[in-house]
Amino acid sequence: MDRLSLNQATVKHLGCEDAVALCVRHGIPAIGLWREPVAELGLARAAAAVRAAGLHVSSLCRGGFLTRADADGRQAALADNRAAIAEAAELGADTLVLVCGGLVPGQRDLGLARRMIADAIGELVPQAQRLGVRLGVEALHPMFCADRCVISSLGEALDLALTFPADAVGVVVDTYHVWWDARLPDEIARAGPRIVSYQLADWVLPLPPDTLLGRGHLGDGAIDFGPISASVTAAGYDGYVEVEIFNAEVWAAPPDQTAATIRERFAAVLGGS
Amino acid sequence: MDRLSLNQATVKHLGCEDAVALCVRHGIPAIGLWREPVAELGLARAAAAVRAAGLHVSSLCRGGFLTRADADGRQAALADNRAAIAEAAELGADTLVLVCGGLVPGQRDLGLARRMIADAIGELVPQAQRLGVRLGVEALHPMFCADRCVISSLGEALDLALTFPADAVGVVVDTYHVWWDARLPDEIARAGPRIVSYQLADWVLPLPPDTLLGRGHLGDGAIDFGPISASVTAAGYDGYVEVEIFNAEVWAAPPDQTAATIRERFAAVLGGS
Repeated sequence: MDRLSLNQATVKHLGCEDAVALCVRHGIPAIGLWREPVAELGLARAAAAVRAAGLHVSSLCRGGFLTRADADGRQAALADNRAAIAEAAELGADTLVLVCGGLVPGQRDLGLARRMIADAIGELVPQAQRLGVRLGVEALHPMFCADRCVISSLGEALDLALTFPADAVGVVVDTYHVWWDARLPDEIARAGPRIVSYQLADWVLPLPPDTLLGRGHLGDGAIDFGPISASVTAAGYDGYVEVEIFNAEVWAAPPDQTAATIRERFAAVLGGS
Repeated sequence: MDRLSLNQATVKHLGCEDAVALCVRHGIPAIGLWREPVAELGLARAAAAVRAAGLHVSSLCRGGFLTRADADGRQAALADNRAAIAEAAELGADTLVLVCGGLVPGQRDLGLARRMIADAIGELVPQAQRLGVRLGVEALHPMFCADRCVISSLGEALDLALTFPADAVGVVVDTYHVWWDARLPDEIARAGPRIVSYQLADWVLPLPPDTLLGRGHLGDGAIDFGPISASVTAAGYDGYVEVEIFNAEVWAAPPDQTAATIRERFAAVLGGS
C-alpha cells in the first residue's frame, strides 16, 4: 500500500487540491496528476499543494499527440510537449506520460506516424535530460491505434524507447492496454529499468459507447493482475503503482468511496498490506 | 478480380442460394460460407448449389470456441468442430476458420485458455488431415481477447499453427484484426505457406455499441490495404481474397449494391482489374 498512487483521472471531477486531500485522507502516498486540473489551479499552487501534503507525484499525464499533418501543427505539438516537460519538472513527477498520437490526419501510413513520433521524441529528449524528466512512452490498446496512439504494444514502445538514452525515455506499462499480449512477460522482462510507470485498470465488457471509458476497478474484469505485477517487479520496477480508471460510473461515485474501493481492490489483487 | 471472394456474412440476410446467385450475377468467383445458413439449406443442397454455380468455396466459418470450463463443454466443442471439419470437406472449402475462444469462463488465466486451444486443435488435426481440410487459426483484434479469442496477433496464431503439420493447420490473415501490429509485415513473411485465408474489412471509427459490427467497406476506414496485401502476396499466398464485413448498415443495404461496392472497392484498394 505504500506504493499505491491515485491517478487523478480516476476522480475526474476533483480539482488538484481536493484530489490531494482525498489521497491524504485515505493514506495514499502518491498521485498521478493531469495537466488540465494542474493548469486550472495554477502550476505553482499545484506543486505547493502536493508538497505540503507530503505526496509524491508518480506521473504527469500527458504529453504526446505528435502525429500532425502540417509543419505548424508539429511545431505546436512540440511546444505543448516542452511545456509539459517543464510542468513535470516543477511538479517533481517521476515521468511525463506520452500518448503518442494516432494516424497522421488524412494518412493511413502507420510507418509515417511512427517515424514522426520517433522524430518528435528526439526533439524533446535534450530538454527532458536537462530538466531531469523521463518521458514515458505508453502503448495504448490496439483499438486506439487509428485515432490516439499507433504504439500498440509494449514491445513496440520499448523498441522506440531503446533508441534514446535511458535517463530520458522509458515505457509505461498500463494493464488495460497490454494485458492481452502473449509477449507481455517477455517484453516486461526486456524493458527492465526502462519501465518508468506502472498503471492499473481492469478490462470490463461490454465496452461503453465511448470506448475510452471502459475501464473498471481492479477485480471487476478480465485481467489477471498478479502475474503481470510479478513480472513488473521481477523486471526491477520498484516505483509507484497508479490506479487509473476512466469510467462514467466511477466518476459519478463519491470520491471517498472510490478511494476506499481502490485501496481494498489494490490489496486484494496485489496482496498489498 | 478473379481472386475476389464474398464472405457470406457481408450479406448476412441472404440464404446460401441467394448469396451464390449474387456472386454469379456480379462475377465474383468464390464465396466464404457460414455454417448456420449452410445448415438451414442443408449441407448437401448447399454444396450442390455452389458446385452448380461454378463457385469456389474459399472458407467455411467457423469452428473454434474451444475454451470451455468443464469436460462436457470441451467434448461438446470438439464434437461441434468435428462436424464443422466434415462440412468443410463436403463443401470443398479451402479452410475451416477457427475463432478459438476467449478466457475460460470463470478464469482470468490467458495461458490456460491458450493451452486449452492448443490441446483441442491437436485433437482435431487427425480428422482434418484425413478429410483434407486445413484449419485456419484466426487472430482476432485484442479487443476481443476476453470474450472471443485469446489469440490476439498473427505472430501468436502462427506460433500455434507451427506446432502442427502444415497440411492441417494454418493461419487466417484478417486485416480488420491485425492491421495495427508493427510486427505484421514480419509475421506475414514468417507465415509464408501457412497463410490459408486472407480476409479484408476496414477499421471504421467510432466503434458501434456492438463492437463486432464496426467493420467497413474497403476504403472507408484507417487500413492501408496495399502494403498488407503486398506482404501477403510476397509470402506466397495466391488463394482467394475474401471481403467480410459485419456492419448493420451494410446488412441493411440492397445486396446487389453491396456486391457492386465490394467489386469497386476491391479494385480500388488492391488494384484488381
